[in-house]
Amino acid sequence: MADKNLIEKPISSKEIFDGKILHVVHDTVELPNGAEASREVIRHTGAVCVIPVTEEGTVIMERQYRYPIARVMLEIPAGKLEPGEDPLEGGLRELEEETGIVAGKMTCLGELLPAPAYCDEKITMYLATELTRKERHLDEDEFLDVFEMPLSELVRMVMDGEIADAKTQITVLKADRILNGNQ
Amino acid sequence: MADKNLIEKPISSKEIFDGKILHVVHDTVELPNGAEASREVIRHTGAVCVIPVTEEGTVIMERQYRYPIARVMLEIPAGKLEPGEDPLEGGLRELEEETGIVAGKMTCLGELLPAPAYCDEKITMYLATELTRKERHLDEDEFLDVFEMPLSELVRMVMDGEIADAKTQITVLKADRILNGNQ
Repeated sequence: MADKNLIEKPISSKEIFDGKILHVVHDTVELPNGAEASREVIRHTGAVCVIPVTEEGTVIMERQYRYPIARVMLEIPAGKLEPGEDPLEGGLRELEEETGIVAGKMTCLGELLPAPAYCDEKITMYLATELTRKERHLDEDEFLDVFEMPLSELVRMVMDGEIADAKTQITVLKADRILNGNQ
Repeated sequence: MADKNLIEKPISSKEIFDGKILHVVHDTVELPNGAEASREVIRHTGAVCVIPVTEEGTVIMERQYRYPIARVMLEIPAGKLEPGEDPLEGGLRELEEETGIVAGKMTCLGELLPAPAYCDEKITMYLATELTRKERHLDEDEFLDVFEMPLSELVRMVMDGEIADAKTQITVLKADRILNGNQ
């Protein structure tokens, strides 16, 4: 099927909420068959995530409380991009702020769209290596715990369904293929 | 750090939008240091996704227009759960509705949280095998293109950053590890 038979045309857009993180709009679109449909859309400024792997094959991880699911999650370092910020710069900044790690080498692992059905957020992924440790400097209202675990154990946890966070699952499996030659 | 030093306590909640797919709330929470912070949260009913792999090692894929990013995406079959629906039943239902495929075997690949910082959506993932082809029966307002491609080519595309959708990246890499013994 040609793309033109899949595309939806915007008819109207209504602003619902203009928050600090999320911008919510409720749009009406024309479907390929001419019918109208409603689309609930979250606009997001974009984010970056970094899987930092040491020479010993361990990963610098974070434990962080996630209010929407009321649970402490295991995740790789990540954060929102500043307006206009380059993803690579943002990745280096977030990594150093949250963990105190400076990466000598950043390898782009591509992008991920967490929920393209209703959200335009795009997260650029990096593998950070050649790591140096400095002081971390969290925002005053940021609470997270930094720890280290073997990449091989993280791969096992991802495969056994013990890691829920999408960006962490993807970067763990990609980093393992790249670093351990399972290409 | 103990979990109690990470947890945020809800203080108040304001409903912003009660849509067909998204329920948006703007909450105030108490941080571990006693300060207050605002949390913008999307409530979602949950979803299921299925990677259907044939005996020949090809994957039944979909091309679908995603309005929030104004682009046709390559994705595995997926859909929202009906209220109270079991994820396994929902996965079998979505797979048959969208592709006409009936799965003889469904292997759970765990869950994924696409965006735990601001959304409570949980997607249960399945690997579908022992496939039989029937007729698909799309909703009247659903437009998507079904096609087949080798799992090995999808793995290459995921590793080269050519597949953006998070659930597709995760399930492709997990299915490859399981089916091709890269455990």
